[in-house]
Amino acid sequence: MLQKNAGYFEQKGCEERSSKKEKALKRQQEAAAAAALAAASIEEADPLSGNYGEWPKWTEIGLVNESLKNKPVLVRGRIHTNRPVGKNIGFLVLREEGFTIQCVLTVAENLISRQMAKFATSLSKESIVDIQGIVSVPDAPIKGATQQVELQVRKIYAICKAVPTLPLNIVDATRSEADIEKALQDGGQIVRVNQDTRLNFRVLDMRTPANLAIFRIQSHVEDIFREFLKSQGFFGIHTPKLIEGTSEGGASVFELDYFGTPACLAQSPQLYKQMAICGDFRRIFEIGSVFRAEKSSTPRHVCEFIGLDVEMEFKEDYSEVMDVVDGLFVAMFDSLNKNCQKELEAIGKQYPFEPLKYLRETPRLTFEERVQMLKEAGVEVESLGDLNIEMERKLGKLSHGIDLKSIESYIDAFRYATHPHGGFGVGLERIVMLFCGLKNIRKTSLFPHDPQRITP
Amino acid sequence: MLQKNAGYFEQKGCEERSSKKEKALKRQQEAAAAAALAAASIEEADPLSGNYGEWPKWTEIGLVNESLKNKPVLVRGRIHTNRPVGKNIGFLVLREEGFTIQCVLTVAENLISRQMAKFATSLSKESIVDIQGIVSVPDAPIKGATQQVELQVRKIYAICKAVPTLPLNIVDATRSEADIEKALQDGGQIVRVNQDTRLNFRVLDMRTPANLAIFRIQSHVEDIFREFLKSQGFFGIHTPKLIEGTSEGGASVFELDYFGTPACLAQSPQLYKQMAICGDFRRIFEIGSVFRAEKSSTPRHVCEFIGLDVEMEFKEDYSEVMDVVDGLFVAMFDSLNKNCQKELEAIGKQYPFEPLKYLRETPRLTFEERVQMLKEAGVEVESLGDLNIEMERKLGKLSHGIDLKSIESYIDAFRYATHPHGGFGVGLERIVMLFCGLKNIRKTSLFPHDPQRITP
Repeated sequence: MLQKNAGYFEQKGCEERSSKKEKALKRQQEAAAAAALAAASIEEADPLSGNYGEWPKWTEIGLVNESLKNKPVLVRGRIHTNRPVGKNIGFLVLREEGFTIQCVLTVAENLISRQMAKFATSLSKESIVDIQGIVSVPDAPIKGATQQVELQVRKIYAICKAVPTLPLNIVDATRSEADIEKALQDGGQIVRVNQDTRLNFRVLDMRTPANLAIFRIQSHVEDIFREFLKSQGFFGIHTPKLIEGTSEGGASVFELDYFGTPACLAQSPQLYKQMAICGDFRRIFEIGSVFRAEKSSTPRHVCEFIGLDVEMEFKEDYSEVMDVVDGLFVAMFDSLNKNCQKELEAIGKQYPFEPLKYLRETPRLTFEERVQMLKEAGVEVESLGDLNIEMERKLGKLSHGIDLKSIESYIDAFRYATHPHGGFGVGLERIVMLFCGLKNIRKTSLFPHDPQRITP
Repeated sequence: MLQKNAGYFEQKGCEERSSKKEKALKRQQEAAAAAALAAASIEEADPLSGNYGEWPKWTEIGLVNESLKNKPVLVRGRIHTNRPVGKNIGFLVLREEGFTIQCVLTVAENLISRQMAKFATSLSKESIVDIQGIVSVPDAPIKGATQQVELQVRKIYAICKAVPTLPLNIVDATRSEADIEKALQDGGQIVRVNQDTRLNFRVLDMRTPANLAIFRIQSHVEDIFREFLKSQGFFGIHTPKLIEGTSEGGASVFELDYFGTPACLAQSPQLYKQMAICGDFRRIFEIGSVFRAEKSSTPRHVCEFIGLDVEMEFKEDYSEVMDVVDGLFVAMFDSLNKNCQKELEAIGKQYPFEPLKYLRETPRLTFEERVQMLKEAGVEVESLGDLNIEMERKLGKLSHGIDLKSIESYIDAFRYATHPHGGFGVGLERIVMLFCGLKNIRKTSLFPHDPQRITP
């Protein structure tokens, strides 16, 4: 069942990673020793209860809180910051998925050696470490971490070390524009990470809380798109992205050679999704790659994006399509507001934005009403006839220059009779960009490619 | 929010379609007249109740049954077959989504004229018509249609006419190999529609019950893939399909020019999905296009397919990935068997197959157990060392000839430290092919493209 070249299980880490088997063995030995200790009956509450017993399984850093006071935990995270305080204390902040916790190494005989504290505070930022420690609750609030408890380190192992000097720091990449301005006004020195640097080192930029949230929201948009349409009797299809023909019509397409036949990348699934309707698929949607070889470098354009496309039969008229559009976007925006509050807050913290305002139903105006509105807005509209001629001219421009040979199958499809139908399309990245008030589509495309960028 | 060139509402039919506005007006007038009739109080059950009252809204052909006896219905469907019987009776079978109903026009004064019966029986096959009629239940079972009731036609309008001669008939394209063999043995003449003809005229081939079912199943596979993985904390991402680099390593990729930079189409999302793990996305999946420029023309290969890819951090070892694989495929196959019985039956009718046998849990063997099994099966395995050397050689071949420059971002990603991780990938079309026992991947790709075919 697995694809050729794709039926694999990779097991990878980085070279520095210590031998997994040895560690597993070590843990087993520790667990056995701990179990022996636990077996001895404990007759009263013991302030040293964290020093023996069975070591717990993994805990997410975001879940380490006061309820675990004096309890042992095992966490894995990245080193967000670390520093020694004198010779006998080391601090480090460990990060996992946007949550951070302060970890303390206090030199003490038979517990923490000076070498151990030095090892922990010398590890490069972004390195991944496993820490076994006891949860403690300090008197004063903790400023440098999200979790209001500390971890008294007992053991620390490096799982994967990062290079000593990073091209950008997550702390810098996380700052909002307001934070930067404030720091600059206060006369401080601060690093502003520009958009290009972010994209050059995208795997680092991705680790900011805002980015972790943006792409979860994107996935949720797709979920709602599918779920709403499925509830309305639609199902998903996939149509070719590699299609016959060239850009003779002047359209901006990427051309390539297909075993000797001139071909190009699909600019939209338009013709194919209509062919699916000709094939009696009735109500379909497609989530797939769309390619545009447009040279425009605007904040709203990339050369490759994900199109959310819909096509459907209708019985009476296209208002049936508009009903689907209305229902879909209201369901989508409602669900984002209801289910993604945490993610929206994380984005707003770095990129403040006003919640999107939307109507429960899109106003539907007659042609006359629209003309009247235009007139009232001071737009010169001579007569209905004039508008229509303009519209026809535009329509004329739209079929201009296409090589009919390359869309023969599409034209033929209509000869075999088709239901009246309609549809619409929207870019996934644009929905997220607009909903979250982000100003650049490069913030909502995971690895955006534009005329100036094809890597990473 | 709508994409440039994609923010449209199309309203299309074919040229022959009669004026929609006129029809709507006519229906309104009829409804008004019927409403007047209905207003007269009806004091007892009336055998002519189907002749007056308000004409109902649309009914799906698959839902027209005995419960609607003597009731008026309005249906839209394609002409599956039609023929006159003498001068005074016309039969036609109307089809909608695999369901068929026999419609009868019996010439009667002020109800059905000879011209009307001739119009109905002269319409080309696959034309789309609206029929208003009264449901009747004949004494004998109906052989030529799925619905065991007839429709006594009162009105019939052509919505869209097909060309008179079709390149393939749906009736022919629907026949199983067994039906064909039987007909041939009985000395009959019968048309066998070969795979290439099906693909040349795919929009007609798509209308067979088996095809309508295959692509609904494909969409369901995708649904379960998403839903299961979401329940396990995964979310979906999209990575570029248009990437830097060429096929210098000899790999079979489609090459193209990206604004002056050599580029190619992604053979797999492998490197990008690992970069997402480096970016702390933790558990992700991707559903997206995969391109292979392989010249092999086998029943299992196409040049473009949909990859279902997964990548995830693990804490201890790759058995955590195997847990996900096991859970995913068992959930998927269980759900197909439970929720797609109707579709599986429709496929089995044309392409009989045995239900897929699968284990609740994949057996996990140690290396030694596998060697022992190979030995017992008569495979010569000299020693563990020999096997490992062979594996290393294979591994050596896999990094052979890649231009490191083009995957620099990927290699760099590991310098910034990454969690131990693993993943897997599988082709959507192959899952459906194997589950439904279909022998050719061209049956599960909507518009398959291979070295010999790029259209439709």
